[in-house]
Amino acid sequence: MSLLGIDVGGTKLAMAVGGRDGAPTHRMRRAIALTGDWRRDLEVLTDDARRLLEEATKAGASPLERIGVSVPGPLDREAGLLLNPPNLPGWSEVPVGSVLEAAFGVETRVENDANAAALAEWHFGAGRLQRDSLVYLTMSTGVGGGLILGGRLHRGAHGGAGELGHAAVELPGIVCACGLQGCLEAYVGGNAWRDRLRRVTPDESDVLARAGGAKESIRPEHLVEAARTGDAFALREMSRWLDYLSRGLATLVMTLEPEVIVLGTIAVAAGEELCFAPLRERVAARLWPHQAARLSIVPAALGEDLPYRAGLAVALEGEASEPDAGAR
Amino acid sequence: MSLLGIDVGGTKLAMAVGGRDGAPTHRMRRAIALTGDWRRDLEVLTDDARRLLEEATKAGASPLERIGVSVPGPLDREAGLLLNPPNLPGWSEVPVGSVLEAAFGVETRVENDANAAALAEWHFGAGRLQRDSLVYLTMSTGVGGGLILGGRLHRGAHGGAGELGHAAVELPGIVCACGLQGCLEAYVGGNAWRDRLRRVTPDESDVLARAGGAKESIRPEHLVEAARTGDAFALREMSRWLDYLSRGLATLVMTLEPEVIVLGTIAVAAGEELCFAPLRERVAARLWPHQAARLSIVPAALGEDLPYRAGLAVALEGEASEPDAGAR
Repeated sequence: MSLLGIDVGGTKLAMAVGGRDGAPTHRMRRAIALTGDWRRDLEVLTDDARRLLEEATKAGASPLERIGVSVPGPLDREAGLLLNPPNLPGWSEVPVGSVLEAAFGVETRVENDANAAALAEWHFGAGRLQRDSLVYLTMSTGVGGGLILGGRLHRGAHGGAGELGHAAVELPGIVCACGLQGCLEAYVGGNAWRDRLRRVTPDESDVLARAGGAKESIRPEHLVEAARTGDAFALREMSRWLDYLSRGLATLVMTLEPEVIVLGTIAVAAGEELCFAPLRERVAARLWPHQAARLSIVPAALGEDLPYRAGLAVALEGEASEPDAGAR
Repeated sequence: MSLLGIDVGGTKLAMAVGGRDGAPTHRMRRAIALTGDWRRDLEVLTDDARRLLEEATKAGASPLERIGVSVPGPLDREAGLLLNPPNLPGWSEVPVGSVLEAAFGVETRVENDANAAALAEWHFGAGRLQRDSLVYLTMSTGVGGGLILGGRLHRGAHGGAGELGHAAVELPGIVCACGLQGCLEAYVGGNAWRDRLRRVTPDESDVLARAGGAKESIRPEHLVEAARTGDAFALREMSRWLDYLSRGLATLVMTLEPEVIVLGTIAVAAGEELCFAPLRERVAARLWPHQAARLSIVPAALGEDLPYRAGLAVALEGEASEPDAGAR
């Protein structure tokens, strides 16, 4: 059977056709060009998908069986609507799933991007050898989370689980973009960190030089580069970032004891020496020795492949792992 | 089929025979009298169980099919051992399950008391109408947790999930009995709270009067009684307790979005007006409005029945809810 995976990102659209092993046989990627009218945008997306499927069919792919879509949240699962993602202007209460089901005549599953990434890492990436559980943190502009527990995506009572970026790590703490106080995202999220760095980076830091000397151009990547060369300010900031992150992760271990915690984006860019090795130590210091000994915190493994795999993983999820409706 | 449920508590032993509906048809309860030799203690327990089963059989019960046991943690699930519960002197690395399997010739499942209580509330109590998820907090001498997620007990990668009492709610925070800092249990656990109250209760407070005027006799129950009569100190302390508890619960909602959070013991004793109504407000203040609107925090429903139901729920759990081993 063939699956179609679609990843609607803030800036890019990616699609892939693949089989149950999740290996994309045909793929496409392009910048997202929104018209301000979601109906029109979805027509363009559907045309793209149709072309990719035609290409796959010509190459001998079996008929399409299911579509999986990764979208920026928030989703209203009960109503099947993508509500109003801040980075998709003009998209408000969009029935992505039913539009695609009507266009292609196959079941279409839709998940928010953090859940989709968690599924992708679970099926094809850093969690592919695990059997029980994985927690994925996006560590991107914001901090999103996806939880695989007991081998299945845990969505929560109303699809709202995994808001790991908005668990408090400082009390009362600074105000987060979400309106709450002390959220993990307000300390380690890419946008919050960027804004802070633009405020606090000293003139003599290498971070500023790497941003071309303009504070308003500083991004977390510049800090990571400067930390790698031993810049004192960058190392202090990195340490602060790791400390807040370790608070959030320790609580996750106490609560869920996942087999593996997978971190994406900024953490992957920072790498083993700057991020993962010191992070494991800091989390361990907040745990009991037997928990620390079993701790597994690793970088996301899919990298550039994630957008192609995310949609395919969503298409696959229901297949292998849907809760048994008759179990209760 | 008949099930035998056994609850080994710190001070009491309870047993019940029942069917799949979890209603105990025969029960016994007695003070635990430990000999310092767990083999001897288990022989006495086995004799008790045999007598209860004979009684049930005479009354027409069907043959015994499975045993469920609730024990104080910690457990080593892989080795099938109860390690060294602080309140069961002489019990160290006890193979409870295999001893009972040898004695009765039926499968025996063993869970720690927080998991067993979560299962009992899920099957028979406050969560019996839910389909997806329940988080149970013991709120007793310590704070333990049990998680039902996707309709199944979530034990974690090595049986260590649900340590909700040791997620940090204050940073760095006071040192917990467990050795870590800022743990929820160090602020709201019965023993920690008792010790604090003995230190900080002012002479003029009604709390002291209710403890017979002796600070070393103060227990959280005295505080709850005094708060009910409007004692200013007791109300302030109750407020502090609710505040710390609300921090822990808000993180749980962000992380797991359970259908229901069930609180036991002290919370049940404090009741709706003193505990649940103000607690819901405080948790809501740490959440987004749509999360707060869906929040369900309720008292444990089983009360005095819990010890009889806990073992029966453990016996039942595997039956209805064991993960499908073939799913992956």
